[in-house]
Amino acid sequence: MDYRKEFRVDPGDKVKLNKRDSAYTGKHRSEDDAKQQIEAFRKKLFHQQGRLYAEHKHSILVVLQALDAGGKDGTIKHVFSAMNPQGVRVASFKQPTSSELAHDFLWRVHPHAPGRGEIAIFNRSYYEDVLITRVHKLIDKATWTARYENIRDFEALLAETGTTILKFFLHISKDEQLARFAQRLDDPARNWKISESDYTERALWDDYIEAFEDALQATSAKASPWYVIPSNQKWFRNLAVSQIMADTMEELKLAYPPPSVDLAAIRRKYHEAARQEKGNKKNG
Amino acid sequence: MDYRKEFRVDPGDKVKLNKRDSAYTGKHRSEDDAKQQIEAFRKKLFHQQGRLYAEHKHSILVVLQALDAGGKDGTIKHVFSAMNPQGVRVASFKQPTSSELAHDFLWRVHPHAPGRGEIAIFNRSYYEDVLITRVHKLIDKATWTARYENIRDFEALLAETGTTILKFFLHISKDEQLARFAQRLDDPARNWKISESDYTERALWDDYIEAFEDALQATSAKASPWYVIPSNQKWFRNLAVSQIMADTMEELKLAYPPPSVDLAAIRRKYHEAARQEKGNKKNG
Repeated sequence: MDYRKEFRVDPGDKVKLNKRDSAYTGKHRSEDDAKQQIEAFRKKLFHQQGRLYAEHKHSILVVLQALDAGGKDGTIKHVFSAMNPQGVRVASFKQPTSSELAHDFLWRVHPHAPGRGEIAIFNRSYYEDVLITRVHKLIDKATWTARYENIRDFEALLAETGTTILKFFLHISKDEQLARFAQRLDDPARNWKISESDYTERALWDDYIEAFEDALQATSAKASPWYVIPSNQKWFRNLAVSQIMADTMEELKLAYPPPSVDLAAIRRKYHEAARQEKGNKKNG
Repeated sequence: MDYRKEFRVDPGDKVKLNKRDSAYTGKHRSEDDAKQQIEAFRKKLFHQQGRLYAEHKHSILVVLQALDAGGKDGTIKHVFSAMNPQGVRVASFKQPTSSELAHDFLWRVHPHAPGRGEIAIFNRSYYEDVLITRVHKLIDKATWTARYENIRDFEALLAETGTTILKFFLHISKDEQLARFAQRLDDPARNWKISESDYTERALWDDYIEAFEDALQATSAKASPWYVIPSNQKWFRNLAVSQIMADTMEELKLAYPPPSVDLAAIRRKYHEAARQEKGNKKNG
């Protein structure tokens, strides 16, 4: 199954999230069934990233967005941990500081754009500036509409400079969110994540869905598509994200670059050094 | 074996690198023998880092230095890849830009210091400013002596602000370097790493060793120790680094923080939400 095709929002698409099944798991029935495939994709990602880094030509930007408990952290932990931390950076965008608020909304983001050979993973992103700010009525429609255009322009700039952009919306149902909140209550390794705002934000669920739908359809472009990932089943989410990521990297035809030096000359230097040092040892 | 004790440079120690066996492998005879242990340490690091990140109290700075082909990249790939990229950042310090050179030598470094909950891994570091610059006679003794003090002060600042500092010198023999250069020649996945400077730098081997010895003994402090890791055997290097890292993290007694909210109150909210939504569904 080509999950890129299946989950991509194409330019011009109307996005209706309640028409997209967040519990979808394709032909897979269980985690056990998918495990081997996930592991194979993780291996592919590891090798592809080694080439990406060495080739120093392409950049990759991954944007992760979701409602609370949608699985952004889990996706990083289970999918992107497959790669070498040298060349992979995670940038988490939290509530902006006063200095950040004193600038345009892309100012704090731009320094985190991936350089050649790098992968940047945005855990939340500049999309919050058309989501949470909109839902809390900090901006009006004219502002978020203008920001869609700012975002399209920014992503076009990155894409034109060799950045491949993948944006994942991790789609869970409202019931699944509640179930995850409940699980957190009982798990000491996770209940520190609980905040008072979980329930106040949850009350705004429909507003968030509407804001996401508008943002997704306004900013999905050929060079920076959104993927709506069915994420009620964490293992299916991991499978879909890792497959889309691996397929995308494969298309880049990443390759170790040729040596930047004359190997024959270097080989002579090597033999010279070896001979000379052997001589030194005999005389030494 | 407590490798921290065994490989640490204590304040006041004279460092003589040729007195330290770069081929040392402790009681281990082969990689197979050590593999399980390395895997166990990688698991420990993964779990400890989860706590470090959640607790948001301590920071960890890892400095990796070595002569060319000493294994800095390999250590990151095989040891530090064990951890979640969210909260682990690798900063590679290459030849400074003209803008960086227009500032003090710590200016470009400071922004990469790890924040609370974070681990920063420096692949090369500000130590290059008392190593390569010294060997190439770009600075005089007064300058590198002054920089030792700048470095001690900088590391003291970080340590006083909750940063645990570990500095690893990956110690290989001159023969081992030549062998690794030769391997690179024959491996298309690695020969892009070969540069013309490999052999010119190698000719300065003794000067580098002297510069390292001076730097290590001038800057090893209780709160920011240097470890001289025998690194001819890559697997032993991985074992020693991962063990020292795991032991150090264990001493921090990292723990998931208590929830910042009243769990009982949240539990009531959860039940309320569940009941209400169930009601809505019946009526809907």
